[in-house]
Amino acid sequence: MRGAVLYGPRDVRFEERETPKVIKPTDAIIRISATCVCGSDLWPYRGIQPIAQPTPMGHEYCGIVEEVGSAVKSVKPGQFVIGSFFASDNICLICKIGYQSSCQHAEFVGTAQAPVLRVPLADGTLVPTPEVPSQDLIPNLLTLSDVMGTGWFAADAANVKLGSTAAVVGDGAVGLLAVLSAKQMGAERIIVMSRHESRQKLAREFGATDIVTERGDEGVERIKQLTNGIGADSVLECVGTQQSMMQAIQSTRRGGYVGYVGVPHGVELNGEQLFFAHVHLHGGPAPVRRYLPELIKLVWDRKINPGKVFDMTLPLDQVAQAYRAMDERRAIKTLLRP
Amino acid sequence: MRGAVLYGPRDVRFEERETPKVIKPTDAIIRISATCVCGSDLWPYRGIQPIAQPTPMGHEYCGIVEEVGSAVKSVKPGQFVIGSFFASDNICLICKIGYQSSCQHAEFVGTAQAPVLRVPLADGTLVPTPEVPSQDLIPNLLTLSDVMGTGWFAADAANVKLGSTAAVVGDGAVGLLAVLSAKQMGAERIIVMSRHESRQKLAREFGATDIVTERGDEGVERIKQLTNGIGADSVLECVGTQQSMMQAIQSTRRGGYVGYVGVPHGVELNGEQLFFAHVHLHGGPAPVRRYLPELIKLVWDRKINPGKVFDMTLPLDQVAQAYRAMDERRAIKTLLRP
Repeated sequence: MRGAVLYGPRDVRFEERETPKVIKPTDAIIRISATCVCGSDLWPYRGIQPIAQPTPMGHEYCGIVEEVGSAVKSVKPGQFVIGSFFASDNICLICKIGYQSSCQHAEFVGTAQAPVLRVPLADGTLVPTPEVPSQDLIPNLLTLSDVMGTGWFAADAANVKLGSTAAVVGDGAVGLLAVLSAKQMGAERIIVMSRHESRQKLAREFGATDIVTERGDEGVERIKQLTNGIGADSVLECVGTQQSMMQAIQSTRRGGYVGYVGVPHGVELNGEQLFFAHVHLHGGPAPVRRYLPELIKLVWDRKINPGKVFDMTLPLDQVAQAYRAMDERRAIKTLLRP
Repeated sequence: MRGAVLYGPRDVRFEERETPKVIKPTDAIIRISATCVCGSDLWPYRGIQPIAQPTPMGHEYCGIVEEVGSAVKSVKPGQFVIGSFFASDNICLICKIGYQSSCQHAEFVGTAQAPVLRVPLADGTLVPTPEVPSQDLIPNLLTLSDVMGTGWFAADAANVKLGSTAAVVGDGAVGLLAVLSAKQMGAERIIVMSRHESRQKLAREFGATDIVTERGDEGVERIKQLTNGIGADSVLECVGTQQSMMQAIQSTRRGGYVGYVGVPHGVELNGEQLFFAHVHLHGGPAPVRRYLPELIKLVWDRKINPGKVFDMTLPLDQVAQAYRAMDERRAIKTLLRP
């Protein structure tokens, strides 16, 4: 089969790779219905996170089970399944607490930009949909594999509740779905920091009530103006830079909550500054597996349409175009069809 | 009157200062029954936190109200009162949420190592006891002004609940009272990092179930051994150095909680490390005012004896000795009587 391989900065190739097969009895092999490019793929794509060797790419996936190992019990061939970018056994102490992305046996699933994928720990990782979904549901279901689950975790980690005032730092796909999540969790006011008209539009559609175009100190000031001078109850950090992180912390009211899901690059937090900011800070790789049943139901019942973040669809063999479009911010997120 | 003034590293003098009087209508003047030296006083005392000029010291206090300003309604002369080291109006948006130490009109109360003290925002800051207490209760009540409230906040911020496994980093007075707090909040297991026998003894008396004498990576390893290999649910950081902070974060299980109350000095947290640690982080200056009514009741009903952390008592004019004993770790905490 052919799949995406990153060779170096801005050099993604679609080339022959070995077709995955069951290696361990706990594996499943799935035929990908749709995959996509993640904002976090852009870090190595841009060379900011160097790679040691040509690296297969892709960690968002959904599709039909083709084969399972002998120990797999909860999914079977023919089922449509979704899994997290971290395979998890879902039975260890950490999984039981709901932090499956830190499972004691976690394995990164990193070869999903391909027609066929091996998923380890299939019983713990994959969740089947009630039936094989109709085509129009597939983009929505695909988001649950990472981007939607990550936005949801941002809102959950930031303690968004009925009546909360929330602010979202970042208008990428995660940021936009953090808006949708905050709305679902009952936030009364949702402020989004965004300078891009098309993203502002989608943010409003997802539930944003206010747009802040200023950044840095001015952005913080603007959020304070919108929140009785004290800052937001919940701030959802969806970027991962020093500036976005500080913006998030400073936009939060004392005693409020920062949920951060942007993978930090070069971020250093000053202890004293954090101490006097008096915020709650929680984040990390989203425990997508925890949220899958709930989010599948919301999509299945057509209560949410997270798939709207895909404003470009390409055949998988044009994966290099997909990266380019996202790198140049011409696309919010690109869906790839094998 | 005479009070404590810090002139420079290890140079505390007991010297003539102006006797405080009512300046604003919201002030109260109290005659100090007892005051003490705080672990955080040792930062400037040791020169780690430089001072610009001779600085009056002391921020833990309780005593009898002598006089109140014309606007003060909730306390009156003759009452025995306790207040936080941060005066707060207790009516602003931040106070209402319970973060009085970040009150929008907060003022640091920093001249308490003296016989008489001016407390701003008296209505919001001071809480009277049911009656004037007997002498034996005074050390217990004094701790509520900071050290006990701070230990309590560490446990609260670290989400200690019935059945939790908690670990405490630091065996100073705050750390020891963090043990007492975790016990009160129902922790089933309380691990204390301590190398000092007298402190270990008091920790056990307060409810510690395990003592870890190792530090750094070895200390972390030891805590993991005691917690099914995953780390503690709640870790209470009561020191404020880079090492103690990292020890706390690394000793926490994924998805667990770090409550940090040691004022950070030279602490820098790496964003990526924190992200993958997957912990909740909350801390800052303890909102002592929030806890005062509850803690006064616990002391008044003789349910807790936090005053046991005072293992030395001196007359106020020997304040320099008090600093020296704590600096040299000969005393856990020194009570001063004017």
